[in-house]
Amino acid sequence: MKKDKTEILFGIHSVFEALKANRREFFKIFVKNNLKRSKVDEILKLAKHNNCKVEYVDSNFLDRLTKDIKHQGIAAKTSLFPVQTGKDFFQNYKKTENSPFILILENLEDPHNVGALIRTALCAGVDHIMIPKDRSVAPVSSVSRSSAGAMEHAEIFLITNTASTIKKLKERGAWIAGLDASGDTPLFKADFSGFFALVVGGEHKGIRPLVKKECDFLISIPIKGRINSLNASVAGGVALYEAFRKRCLKS
Amino acid sequence: MKKDKTEILFGIHSVFEALKANRREFFKIFVKNNLKRSKVDEILKLAKHNNCKVEYVDSNFLDRLTKDIKHQGIAAKTSLFPVQTGKDFFQNYKKTENSPFILILENLEDPHNVGALIRTALCAGVDHIMIPKDRSVAPVSSVSRSSAGAMEHAEIFLITNTASTIKKLKERGAWIAGLDASGDTPLFKADFSGFFALVVGGEHKGIRPLVKKECDFLISIPIKGRINSLNASVAGGVALYEAFRKRCLKS
Repeated sequence: MKKDKTEILFGIHSVFEALKANRREFFKIFVKNNLKRSKVDEILKLAKHNNCKVEYVDSNFLDRLTKDIKHQGIAAKTSLFPVQTGKDFFQNYKKTENSPFILILENLEDPHNVGALIRTALCAGVDHIMIPKDRSVAPVSSVSRSSAGAMEHAEIFLITNTASTIKKLKERGAWIAGLDASGDTPLFKADFSGFFALVVGGEHKGIRPLVKKECDFLISIPIKGRINSLNASVAGGVALYEAFRKRCLKS
Repeated sequence: MKKDKTEILFGIHSVFEALKANRREFFKIFVKNNLKRSKVDEILKLAKHNNCKVEYVDSNFLDRLTKDIKHQGIAAKTSLFPVQTGKDFFQNYKKTENSPFILILENLEDPHNVGALIRTALCAGVDHIMIPKDRSVAPVSSVSRSSAGAMEHAEIFLITNTASTIKKLKERGAWIAGLDASGDTPLFKADFSGFFALVVGGEHKGIRPLVKKECDFLISIPIKGRINSLNASVAGGVALYEAFRKRCLKS
Protein backbone atom coordinates (compact mmCIF):
# COMPACT_ATOMS: atom_id res chain seq x y z
CA MET A 1 0.00 0.00 0.00
CA LYS A 2 1.29 3.44 -0.95
CA LYS A 3 0.62 5.52 2.12
CA ASP A 4 0.67 8.83 0.31
CA LYS A 5 -2.34 8.01 -1.82
CA THR A 6 -5.88 9.07 -1.02
CA GLU A 7 -9.34 8.12 -2.19
CA ILE A 8 -12.89 9.43 -1.96
CA LEU A 9 -15.17 7.37 0.24
CA PHE A 10 -18.91 7.93 -0.24
CA GLY A 11 -22.23 6.85 1.23
CA ILE A 12 -23.52 7.22 4.80
CA HIS A 13 -22.61 3.72 5.99
CA SER A 14 -19.23 3.65 4.31
CA VAL A 15 -18.10 6.97 5.86
CA PHE A 16 -19.66 6.09 9.24
CA GLU A 17 -18.08 2.63 9.49
CA ALA A 18 -14.70 3.94 8.32
CA LEU A 19 -14.77 6.54 11.11
CA LYS A 20 -15.77 3.88 13.64
CA ALA A 21 -13.13 1.39 12.44
CA ASN A 22 -10.51 4.14 12.70
CA ARG A 23 -8.12 2.52 10.25
CA ARG A 24 -7.94 5.31 7.66
CA GLU A 25 -6.65 8.84 7.94
CA PHE A 26 -9.50 11.31 7.31
CA PHE A 27 -8.51 14.54 5.53
CA LYS A 28 -11.92 16.11 5.01
CA ILE A 29 -15.59 15.18 5.15
CA PHE A 30 -17.99 16.67 2.61
CA VAL A 31 -21.64 16.95 3.63
CA LYS A 32 -24.49 18.11 1.41
CA ASN A 33 -26.10 21.35 2.59
CA ASN A 34 -29.16 20.71 4.77
CA LEU A 35 -28.66 16.95 4.71
CA LYS A 36 -31.25 15.30 6.92
CA ARG A 37 -30.48 11.64 7.37
CA SER A 38 -30.08 9.42 10.37
CA LYS A 39 -26.45 8.84 11.32
CA VAL A 40 -25.30 12.26 10.01
CA ASP A 41 -25.16 13.63 13.56
CA GLU A 42 -23.14 10.60 14.64
CA ILE A 43 -20.78 11.11 11.69
CA LEU A 44 -20.27 14.77 12.61
CA LYS A 45 -19.62 13.80 16.24
CA LEU A 46 -17.00 11.25 15.21
CA ALA A 47 -15.46 13.77 12.79
CA LYS A 48 -15.11 16.31 15.61
CA HIS A 49 -13.61 13.68 17.88
CA ASN A 50 -11.04 12.83 15.16
CA ASN A 51 -10.28 16.52 14.46
CA CYS A 52 -11.43 16.08 10.88
CA LYS A 53 -12.49 19.14 8.83
CA VAL A 54 -16.07 19.21 7.54
CA GLU A 55 -17.12 21.17 4.45
CA TYR A 56 -20.74 21.77 3.42
CA VAL A 57 -21.24 21.48 -0.34
CA ASP A 58 -24.02 21.14 -2.91
CA SER A 59 -25.18 17.89 -4.46
CA ASN A 60 -23.50 18.55 -7.83
CA PHE A 61 -20.15 18.94 -6.12
CA LEU A 62 -20.62 15.49 -4.55
CA ASP A 63 -21.74 13.95 -7.86
CA ARG A 64 -18.51 15.18 -9.47
CA LEU A 65 -16.30 14.30 -6.51
CA THR A 66 -17.53 10.72 -6.15
CA LYS A 67 -18.22 10.11 -9.88
CA ASP A 68 -21.35 8.36 -8.66
CA ILE A 69 -24.81 9.53 -7.68
CA LYS A 70 -25.10 7.04 -4.83
CA HIS A 71 -23.22 9.21 -2.36
CA GLN A 72 -26.33 9.81 -0.18
CA GLY A 73 -25.11 13.35 0.47
CA ILE A 74 -21.82 12.46 2.12
CA ALA A 75 -18.23 11.79 1.08
CA ALA A 76 -14.77 11.87 2.63
CA LYS A 77 -11.21 12.22 1.43
CA THR A 78 -9.22 9.53 3.23
CA SER A 79 -6.07 7.47 3.03
CA LEU A 80 -6.38 4.18 1.15
CA PHE A 81 -7.93 1.14 2.78
CA PRO A 82 -5.23 -0.70 4.80
CA VAL A 83 -4.85 -3.93 2.85
CA GLN A 84 -2.26 -6.54 3.74
CA THR A 85 -0.42 -9.00 1.52
CA GLY A 86 -0.38 -12.79 1.38
CA LYS A 87 3.13 -12.58 2.85
CA ASP A 88 1.74 -10.65 5.86
CA PHE A 89 -0.79 -13.42 6.40
CA PHE A 90 1.75 -16.24 6.43
CA GLN A 91 4.26 -14.30 8.53
CA ASN A 92 1.65 -13.68 11.21
CA TYR A 93 -0.18 -16.95 10.86
CA LYS A 94 1.17 -18.55 14.04
CA LYS A 95 -0.08 -15.60 16.00
CA THR A 96 -3.63 -15.89 14.74
CA GLU A 97 -6.50 -17.64 16.44
CA ASN A 98 -7.08 -21.38 16.15
CA SER A 99 -8.91 -22.69 13.10
CA PRO A 100 -9.43 -19.50 11.13
CA PHE A 101 -12.18 -19.32 8.53
CA ILE A 102 -10.99 -17.71 5.29
CA LEU A 103 -12.92 -16.50 2.25
CA ILE A 104 -11.05 -16.33 -1.06
CA LEU A 105 -12.75 -14.19 -3.73
CA GLU A 106 -11.41 -15.51 -7.02
CA ASN A 107 -11.98 -13.62 -10.22
CA LEU A 108 -15.04 -11.53 -9.23
CA GLU A 109 -15.71 -8.59 -11.55
CA ASP A 110 -18.66 -6.77 -10.02
CA PRO A 111 -17.98 -4.39 -7.09
CA HIS A 112 -21.56 -4.96 -5.86
CA ASN A 113 -20.95 -8.70 -5.54
CA VAL A 114 -17.57 -8.18 -3.86
CA GLY A 115 -19.11 -5.67 -1.44
CA ALA A 116 -22.09 -7.91 -0.63
CA LEU A 117 -19.79 -10.91 -0.08
CA ILE A 118 -17.50 -8.97 2.26
CA ARG A 119 -20.55 -7.78 4.23
CA THR A 120 -21.95 -11.33 4.49
CA ALA A 121 -18.53 -12.75 5.37
CA LEU A 122 -18.24 -10.40 8.35
CA CYS A 123 -21.73 -11.33 9.56
CA ALA A 124 -21.03 -15.06 9.16
CA GLY A 125 -17.83 -15.14 11.20
CA VAL A 126 -15.19 -15.14 8.44
CA ASP A 127 -11.83 -14.17 9.95
CA HIS A 128 -9.82 -13.19 6.87
CA ILE A 129 -10.63 -12.37 3.25
CA MET A 130 -8.16 -12.96 0.43
CA ILE A 131 -8.48 -11.27 -2.96
CA PRO A 132 -6.16 -11.93 -5.92
CA LYS A 133 -4.40 -8.71 -6.82
CA ASP A 134 -4.92 -8.78 -10.57
CA ARG A 135 -8.00 -10.93 -10.98
CA SER A 136 -10.70 -9.43 -8.79
CA VAL A 137 -12.10 -6.06 -7.89
CA ALA A 138 -9.78 -4.36 -5.37
CA PRO A 139 -11.09 -3.10 -1.99
CA VAL A 140 -11.78 0.42 -3.27
CA SER A 141 -14.40 2.94 -2.15
CA SER A 142 -17.19 1.60 -4.42
CA VAL A 143 -16.76 -1.80 -2.77
CA SER A 144 -16.87 -0.20 0.69
CA ARG A 145 -20.12 1.52 -0.40
CA SER A 146 -21.59 -1.78 -1.69
CA SER A 147 -20.62 -3.53 1.54
CA ALA A 148 -22.57 -0.87 3.52
CA GLY A 149 -19.25 -0.04 5.19
CA ALA A 150 -18.56 -3.62 6.35
CA MET A 151 -15.30 -3.60 4.36
CA GLU A 152 -13.92 -0.98 6.77
CA HIS A 153 -13.78 -3.64 9.52
CA ALA A 154 -12.50 -6.52 7.37
CA GLU A 155 -9.06 -8.13 7.35
CA ILE A 156 -8.29 -8.15 3.64
CA PHE A 157 -5.17 -9.69 2.10
CA LEU A 158 -4.26 -9.01 -1.53
CA ILE A 159 -2.63 -12.19 -2.81
CA THR A 160 -0.41 -12.54 -5.87
CA ASN A 161 -1.35 -16.03 -6.94
CA THR A 162 -4.42 -17.94 -5.78
CA ALA A 163 -3.18 -21.46 -6.57
CA SER A 164 0.12 -20.99 -4.73
CA THR A 165 -1.65 -19.32 -1.77
CA ILE A 166 -3.96 -22.34 -1.54
CA LYS A 167 -0.92 -24.65 -1.58
CA LYS A 168 0.64 -22.72 1.30
CA LEU A 169 -2.63 -22.79 3.26
CA LYS A 170 -2.81 -26.57 2.78
CA GLU A 171 0.79 -26.98 3.98
CA ARG A 172 -0.32 -25.27 7.19
CA GLY A 173 -3.23 -27.67 7.64
CA ALA A 174 -6.14 -25.84 6.02
CA TRP A 175 -8.96 -27.56 4.13
CA ILE A 176 -9.91 -25.78 0.92
CA ALA A 177 -13.34 -25.98 -0.68
CA GLY A 178 -14.40 -24.35 -3.93
CA LEU A 179 -17.98 -23.30 -4.60
CA ASP A 180 -18.76 -24.82 -7.98
CA ALA A 181 -22.08 -25.56 -9.71
CA SER A 182 -20.81 -29.01 -10.76
CA GLY A 183 -19.16 -29.81 -7.43
CA ASP A 184 -19.45 -33.36 -6.03
CA THR A 185 -20.22 -32.36 -2.43
CA PRO A 186 -23.75 -31.06 -1.83
CA LEU A 187 -23.63 -27.93 0.34
CA PHE A 188 -25.60 -29.37 3.24
CA LYS A 189 -23.35 -32.46 3.44
CA ALA A 190 -20.10 -30.44 3.43
CA ASP A 191 -17.74 -30.41 6.41
CA PHE A 192 -16.67 -26.85 7.20
CA SER A 193 -14.80 -27.60 10.42
CA GLY A 194 -11.28 -26.59 11.45
CA PHE A 195 -8.86 -24.34 9.58
CA PHE A 196 -10.96 -23.78 6.47
CA ALA A 197 -10.98 -21.68 3.31
CA LEU A 198 -13.93 -21.26 0.94
CA VAL A 199 -13.15 -20.17 -2.62
CA VAL A 200 -15.91 -18.26 -4.44
CA GLY A 201 -15.41 -17.86 -8.19
CA GLY A 202 -16.31 -15.21 -10.74
CA GLU A 203 -19.81 -14.33 -11.93
CA HIS A 204 -19.43 -15.81 -15.40
CA LYS A 205 -16.77 -18.46 -15.47
CA GLY A 206 -16.59 -19.53 -11.83
CA ILE A 207 -13.28 -20.72 -10.37
CA ARG A 208 -10.47 -21.13 -12.91
CA PRO A 209 -9.42 -24.78 -13.58
CA LEU A 210 -5.91 -24.40 -12.14
CA VAL A 211 -7.37 -23.05 -8.89
CA LYS A 212 -10.12 -25.67 -8.84
CA LYS A 213 -7.45 -28.40 -9.11
CA GLU A 214 -5.92 -27.21 -5.84
CA CYS A 215 -9.19 -27.41 -3.88
CA ASP A 216 -9.67 -30.41 -1.57
CA PHE A 217 -13.31 -30.64 -2.57
CA LEU A 218 -15.93 -28.75 -4.57
CA ILE A 219 -19.26 -27.77 -3.07
CA SER A 220 -22.43 -27.35 -5.10
CA ILE A 221 -25.62 -25.66 -3.92
CA PRO A 222 -28.70 -27.80 -4.56
CA ILE A 223 -31.10 -26.19 -7.01
CA LYS A 224 -34.69 -27.10 -7.73
CA GLY A 225 -36.59 -26.21 -10.86
CA ARG A 226 -35.78 -24.77 -14.24
CA ILE A 227 -33.26 -22.12 -13.29
CA ASN A 228 -29.74 -23.42 -13.06
CA SER A 229 -27.78 -20.82 -11.16
CA LEU A 230 -27.86 -18.29 -8.35
CA ASN A 231 -26.49 -14.75 -8.26
CA ALA A 232 -22.80 -14.87 -7.14
CA SER A 233 -23.35 -12.88 -3.93
CA VAL A 234 -26.43 -14.92 -2.97
CA ALA A 235 -24.65 -18.24 -3.69
CA GLY A 236 -21.64 -17.14 -1.63
CA GLY A 237 -23.97 -15.88 1.13
CA VAL A 238 -25.87 -19.17 1.33
CA ALA A 239 -22.59 -21.14 1.54
CA LEU A 240 -21.06 -18.78 4.13
CA TYR A 241 -24.16 -19.09 6.33
CA GLU A 242 -24.13 -22.89 6.07
CA ALA A 243 -20.49 -22.77 7.22
CA PHE A 244 -21.48 -20.40 10.04
CA ARG A 245 -24.33 -22.72 11.11
CA LYS A 246 -22.00 -25.72 11.26
CA ARG A 247 -18.93 -23.97 12.69
CA CYS A 248 -20.43 -21.62 15.27
CA LEU A 249 -24.03 -22.44 15.94
CA LYS A 250 -23.81 -26.25 15.87
CA SER A 251 -27.52 -26.48 15.06
CA MET B 1 -53.22 -7.22 -16.80
CA LYS B 2 -53.96 -5.12 -19.88
CA LYS B 3 -53.26 -7.48 -22.76
CA ASP B 4 -52.78 -4.74 -25.32
CA LYS B 5 -49.73 -3.33 -23.55
CA THR B 6 -46.18 -4.20 -24.48
CA GLU B 7 -42.77 -3.80 -22.92
CA ILE B 8 -39.12 -4.07 -23.90
CA LEU B 9 -37.30 -7.05 -22.43
CA PHE B 10 -33.50 -6.87 -22.48
CA GLY B 11 -30.49 -8.99 -21.63
CA ILE B 12 -29.48 -12.40 -22.97
CA HIS B 13 -30.91 -14.48 -20.11
CA SER B 14 -34.12 -12.50 -19.84
CA VAL B 15 -34.97 -12.85 -23.55
CA PHE B 16 -33.82 -16.49 -23.64
CA GLU B 17 -35.83 -17.58 -20.58
CA ALA B 18 -38.92 -15.66 -21.77
CA LEU B 19 -38.78 -17.52 -25.09
CA LYS B 20 -38.34 -20.84 -23.26
CA ALA B 21 -41.14 -20.13 -20.78
CA ASN B 22 -43.42 -19.24 -23.71
CA ARG B 23 -45.78 -17.11 -21.59
CA ARG B 24 -45.38 -13.80 -23.43
CA GLU B 25 -46.25 -12.84 -26.98
CA PHE B 26 -43.07 -11.85 -28.87
CA PHE B 27 -43.50 -9.08 -31.47
CA LYS B 28 -39.88 -8.53 -32.48
CA ILE B 29 -36.38 -9.40 -31.31
CA PHE B 30 -33.60 -6.84 -31.74
CA VAL B 31 -30.04 -8.16 -32.00
CA LYS B 32 -26.88 -6.07 -32.16
CA ASN B 33 -25.01 -6.41 -35.44
CA ASN B 34 -22.26 -9.02 -35.24
CA LEU B 35 -23.18 -10.03 -31.70
CA LYS B 36 -21.02 -12.92 -30.60
CA ARG B 37 -22.29 -14.37 -27.35
CA SER B 38 -23.24 -17.82 -26.22
CA LYS B 39 -26.98 -18.44 -26.29
CA VAL B 40 -27.56 -16.05 -29.22
CA ASP B 41 -27.86 -18.99 -31.63
CA GLU B 42 -30.32 -20.66 -29.28
CA ILE B 43 -32.34 -17.43 -29.06
CA LEU B 44 -32.47 -17.14 -32.87
CA LYS B 45 -33.54 -20.79 -33.15
CA LEU B 46 -36.36 -20.27 -30.63
CA ALA B 47 -37.36 -17.02 -32.39
CA LYS B 48 -37.66 -18.88 -35.71
CA HIS B 49 -39.66 -21.65 -34.06
CA ASN B 50 -42.06 -19.02 -32.65
CA ASN B 51 -42.31 -17.15 -35.97
CA CYS B 52 -40.88 -14.02 -34.34
CA LYS B 53 -39.29 -11.31 -36.48
CA VAL B 54 -35.63 -10.51 -35.85
CA GLU B 55 -34.08 -7.12 -36.64
CA TYR B 56 -30.33 -6.41 -36.58
CA VAL B 57 -29.55 -2.99 -35.09
CA ASP B 58 -26.61 -1.00 -33.73
CA SER B 59 -25.72 -0.63 -30.06
CA ASN B 60 -27.01 2.96 -29.79
CA PHE B 61 -30.43 1.85 -30.97
CA LEU B 62 -30.52 -0.74 -28.15
CA ASP B 63 -29.29 1.82 -25.58
CA ARG B 64 -32.20 4.09 -26.51
CA LEU B 65 -34.75 1.29 -26.79
CA THR B 66 -33.99 -0.27 -23.41
CA LYS B 67 -33.09 2.97 -21.62
CA ASP B 68 -30.30 0.93 -20.07
CA ILE B 69 -26.83 -0.08 -21.17
CA LYS B 70 -27.10 -3.56 -19.67
CA HIS B 71 -28.90 -5.02 -22.68
CA GLN B 72 -25.95 -7.28 -23.62
CA GLY B 73 -26.77 -6.68 -27.30
CA ILE B 74 -30.27 -8.12 -27.25
CA ALA B 75 -33.82 -6.90 -26.61
CA ALA B 76 -37.36 -7.91 -27.48
CA LYS B 77 -40.74 -6.24 -27.75
CA THR B 78 -43.18 -8.50 -25.95
CA SER B 79 -46.55 -8.55 -24.20
CA LEU B 80 -46.47 -7.79 -20.48
CA PHE B 81 -45.46 -10.44 -17.97
CA PRO B 82 -48.52 -12.57 -17.11
CA VAL B 83 -49.12 -11.66 -13.47
CA GLN B 84 -52.08 -12.97 -11.51
CA THR B 85 -54.01 -11.38 -8.65
CA GLY B 86 -54.52 -12.38 -5.03
CA LYS B 87 -58.10 -13.31 -6.00
CA ASP B 88 -56.73 -15.72 -8.64
CA PHE B 89 -54.61 -17.38 -5.97
CA PHE B 90 -57.47 -17.95 -3.54
CA GLN B 91 -59.90 -19.07 -6.26
CA ASN B 92 -57.47 -21.70 -7.47
CA TYR B 93 -56.02 -22.60 -4.11
CA LYS B 94 -57.82 -25.94 -3.74
CA LYS B 95 -56.35 -27.05 -7.03
CA THR B 96 -52.78 -26.36 -5.97
CA GLU B 97 -50.32 -28.84 -4.59
CA ASN B 98 -50.21 -29.77 -0.90
CA SER B 99 -48.34 -27.48 1.43
CA PRO B 100 -47.24 -24.73 -0.92
CA PHE B 101 -44.27 -22.53 -0.04
CA ILE B 102 -44.96 -18.84 -0.66
CA LEU B 103 -42.63 -15.84 -0.70
CA ILE B 104 -44.17 -12.42 0.01
CA LEU B 105 -41.98 -9.46 -1.03
CA GLU B 106 -43.16 -6.57 1.14
CA ASN B 107 -42.07 -3.06 0.38
CA LEU B 108 -38.90 -3.74 -1.63
CA GLU B 109 -37.67 -0.76 -3.62
CA ASP B 110 -34.66 -2.01 -5.55
CA PRO B 111 -35.32 -3.98 -8.78
CA HIS B 112 -31.95 -5.75 -8.30
CA ASN B 113 -33.04 -7.11 -4.92
CA VAL B 114 -36.46 -8.13 -6.22
CA GLY B 115 -34.85 -9.84 -9.23
CA ALA B 116 -32.27 -11.66 -7.10
CA LEU B 117 -34.95 -12.80 -4.62
CA ILE B 118 -37.20 -14.15 -7.41
CA ARG B 119 -34.20 -16.02 -8.86
CA THR B 120 -33.27 -17.51 -5.47
CA ALA B 121 -36.91 -18.36 -4.71
CA LEU B 122 -37.17 -20.43 -7.88
CA CYS B 123 -33.94 -22.28 -7.06
CA ALA B 124 -35.07 -22.94 -3.48
CA GLY B 125 -38.42 -24.50 -4.32
CA VAL B 126 -40.77 -21.57 -3.69
CA ASP B 127 -44.11 -22.30 -5.39
CA HIS B 128 -45.69 -18.84 -5.53
CA ILE B 129 -44.48 -15.27 -5.11
CA MET B 130 -46.74 -12.47 -3.89
CA ILE B 131 -45.91 -8.80 -4.41
CA PRO B 132 -48.02 -5.92 -3.07
CA LYS B 133 -49.30 -3.87 -5.98
CA ASP B 134 -48.45 -0.41 -4.70
CA ARG B 135 -45.63 -1.06 -2.26
CA SER B 136 -42.99 -3.00 -4.13
CA VAL B 137 -41.25 -3.02 -7.47
CA ALA B 138 -43.59 -4.60 -10.07
CA PRO B 139 -42.42 -7.58 -12.19
CA VAL B 140 -41.21 -5.40 -15.07
CA SER B 141 -38.40 -6.02 -17.57
CA SER B 142 -35.61 -4.61 -15.34
CA VAL B 143 -36.60 -7.15 -12.68
CA SER B 144 -36.60 -9.94 -15.26
CA ARG B 145 -33.09 -8.79 -16.26
CA SER B 146 -31.92 -8.76 -12.61
CA SER B 147 -33.38 -12.22 -12.06
CA ALA B 148 -31.30 -13.52 -15.01
CA GLY B 149 -34.62 -14.44 -16.61
CA ALA B 150 -35.84 -16.54 -13.65
CA MET B 151 -38.89 -14.25 -13.34
CA GLU B 152 -40.15 -15.57 -16.69
CA HIS B 153 -40.84 -18.96 -15.05
CA ALA B 154 -42.28 -17.64 -11.76
CA GLU B 155 -45.88 -17.69 -10.54
CA ILE B 156 -46.31 -14.08 -9.43
CA PHE B 157 -49.44 -12.70 -7.77
CA LEU B 158 -49.93 -8.95 -7.36
CA ILE B 159 -51.83 -8.51 -4.10
CA THR B 160 -53.78 -5.45 -3.02
CA ASN B 161 -53.20 -5.59 0.71
CA THR B 162 -50.49 -7.64 2.42
CA ALA B 163 -52.09 -7.80 5.89
CA SER B 164 -55.47 -9.00 4.59
CA THR B 165 -53.78 -11.51 2.24
CA ILE B 166 -51.88 -12.91 5.21
CA LYS B 167 -55.16 -13.22 7.15
CA LYS B 168 -56.73 -15.16 4.28
CA LEU B 169 -53.66 -17.43 4.02
CA LYS B 170 -53.91 -18.13 7.76
CA GLU B 171 -57.62 -18.96 7.46
CA ARG B 172 -56.61 -21.61 4.93
CA GLY B 173 -54.07 -23.11 7.31
CA ALA B 174 -50.81 -21.37 6.36
CA TRP B 175 -48.06 -20.47 8.82
CA ILE B 176 -46.63 -17.01 8.23
CA ALA B 177 -43.12 -15.97 9.23
CA GLY B 178 -41.59 -12.54 8.79
CA LEU B 179 -37.86 -12.01 8.33
CA ASP B 180 -36.97 -9.37 10.89
CA ALA B 181 -33.63 -8.37 12.43
CA SER B 182 -35.21 -8.24 15.90
CA GLY B 183 -37.24 -11.44 15.50
CA ASP B 184 -37.50 -13.88 18.42
CA THR B 185 -36.95 -17.07 16.42
CA PRO B 186 -33.35 -17.67 15.31
CA LEU B 187 -33.28 -18.78 11.66
CA PHE B 188 -31.75 -22.18 12.31
CA LYS B 189 -34.38 -23.03 14.96
CA ALA B 190 -37.35 -22.03 12.78
CA ASP B 191 -39.94 -24.55 11.60
CA PHE B 192 -40.65 -24.09 7.89
CA SER B 193 -42.87 -27.14 7.41
CA GLY B 194 -46.32 -27.38 5.84
CA PHE B 195 -48.27 -24.63 4.06
CA PHE B 196 -45.85 -21.79 4.71
CA ALA B 197 -45.28 -18.16 3.71
CA LEU B 198 -42.11 -16.15 4.31
CA VAL B 199 -42.42 -12.35 4.32
CA VAL B 200 -39.29 -10.39 3.32
CA GLY B 201 -39.40 -6.66 4.08
CA GLY B 202 -37.96 -3.59 2.42
CA GLU B 203 -34.29 -2.61 2.29
CA HIS B 204 -34.54 0.27 4.72
CA LYS B 205 -37.49 -0.13 7.01
CA GLY B 206 -38.12 -3.87 6.89
CA ILE B 207 -41.66 -5.21 7.28
CA ARG B 208 -44.25 -2.57 8.20
CA PRO B 209 -45.68 -2.91 11.76
CA LEU B 210 -49.24 -3.73 10.66
CA VAL B 211 -47.92 -6.59 8.50
CA LYS B 212 -45.52 -7.75 11.20
CA LYS B 213 -48.45 -8.00 13.62
CA GLU B 214 -50.13 -10.54 11.34
CA CYS B 215 -47.10 -12.85 11.21
CA ASP B 216 -47.21 -16.01 13.37
CA PHE B 217 -43.54 -15.57 14.22
CA LEU B 218 -40.55 -13.44 13.30
CA ILE B 219 -37.27 -14.97 12.19
CA SER B 220 -33.90 -13.30 12.71
CA ILE B 221 -30.66 -14.30 11.02
CA PRO B 222 -27.80 -14.73 13.52
CA ILE B 223 -25.02 -12.21 12.98
CA LYS B 224 -21.52 -12.24 14.40
CA GLY B 225 -19.26 -9.25 14.69
CA ARG B 226 -19.56 -5.52 14.30
CA ILE B 227 -21.83 -5.32 11.27
CA ASN B 228 -25.49 -5.52 12.12
CA SER B 229 -27.29 -6.27 8.89
CA LEU B 230 -27.14 -8.18 5.64
CA ASN B 231 -28.06 -7.04 2.14
CA ALA B 232 -31.82 -7.68 1.57
CA SER B 233 -31.33 -10.17 -1.25
CA VAL B 234 -28.62 -12.07 0.66
CA ALA B 235 -30.72 -12.19 3.86
CA GLY B 236 -33.75 -13.43 1.90
CA GLY B 237 -31.55 -15.94 0.07
CA VAL B 238 -30.08 -17.35 3.28
CA ALA B 239 -33.58 -17.74 4.79
CA LEU B 240 -35.04 -19.30 1.61
CA TYR B 241 -32.20 -21.84 1.50
CA GLU B 242 -32.67 -22.75 5.17
CA ALA B 243 -36.36 -23.35 4.37
CA PHE B 244 -35.33 -25.43 1.33
CA ARG B 245 -32.92 -27.48 3.44
CA LYS B 246 -35.58 -28.25 6.03
CA ARG B 247 -38.53 -28.73 3.64
CA CYS B 248 -36.99 -30.63 0.75
CA LEU B 249 -33.58 -31.94 1.65
CA LYS B 250 -34.26 -32.98 5.23
CA SER B 251 -30.57 -32.71 6.06
